[in-house]
Amino acid sequence: MNNQLQSNKKMVREFYHLSLNLRKPEEAVAKYLGPYYRQHNPGAGDGPEAFIGFVKGFTAAFPGLSFDFKRIIAEGDLVAVHSHLVRQPGDRGVAVMDIFRVEKGKIVEHWDVLQEIPESAANTNTMF
Amino acid sequence: MNNQLQSNKKMVREFYHLSLNLRKPEEAVAKYLGPYYRQHNPGAGDGPEAFIGFVKGFTAAFPGLSFDFKRIIAEGDLVAVHSHLVRQPGDRGVAVMDIFRVEKGKIVEHWDVLQEIPESAANTNTMF
Repeated sequence: MNNQLQSNKKMVREFYHLSLNLRKPEEAVAKYLGPYYRQHNPGAGDGPEAFIGFVKGFTAAFPGLSFDFKRIIAEGDLVAVHSHLVRQPGDRGVAVMDIFRVEKGKIVEHWDVLQEIPESAANTNTMF
Repeated sequence: MNNQLQSNKKMVREFYHLSLNLRKPEEAVAKYLGPYYRQHNPGAGDGPEAFIGFVKGFTAAFPGLSFDFKRIIAEGDLVAVHSHLVRQPGDRGVAVMDIFRVEKGKIVEHWDVLQEIPESAANTNTMF
């Protein structure tokens, strides 16, 4: 058990849980973001202010939104997270994978990929 | 440097490179898949035969397809891969994250999320 990896995983979970489930993106940014935030999600700009604005817009549009972590994988300075985003109760939701890069104990870079969960599937395993 | 993680990452890269770039899914399955293959991609069924059929259909539909690995993260029995799938030269392509689970040195389970790369973005970092 590598303590640094455990600490990185805990930080990433708390960053998203605080931002998305508890709707406190300012607090999440203040606690966990580094001196810069390089954003690869095409819908958001670089930096902490853009992240806060993005989350506020998203949670305002979907007041019933919830974000559920399914698995998390850390190696070196990277943390990958597989999650289920539900915008409103009853919605099939969106499968999400995020990768975060950590520098000096803070989150400084982010990539993600999102896919709507289809109504039917060729297997019975779910996307998670 | 954990040798098992390095070996898992090498196997996953070779499995997809052989299947998608070299169009040899039967050889990839014979070398790298375990006694079962639990599939979470909603477009494919469980098992090696479904994987081979899925790859053959996909590469037949897109003869110029290429799959480019961007980063890979391994911990425990899981390997996460972030890649750029281009269906035909000149296509902006698709951002892909895959997670594979390894059991007794073979790949036995797979999750993925795919997203079309949009024409424009709110940052200049690309999705990779």
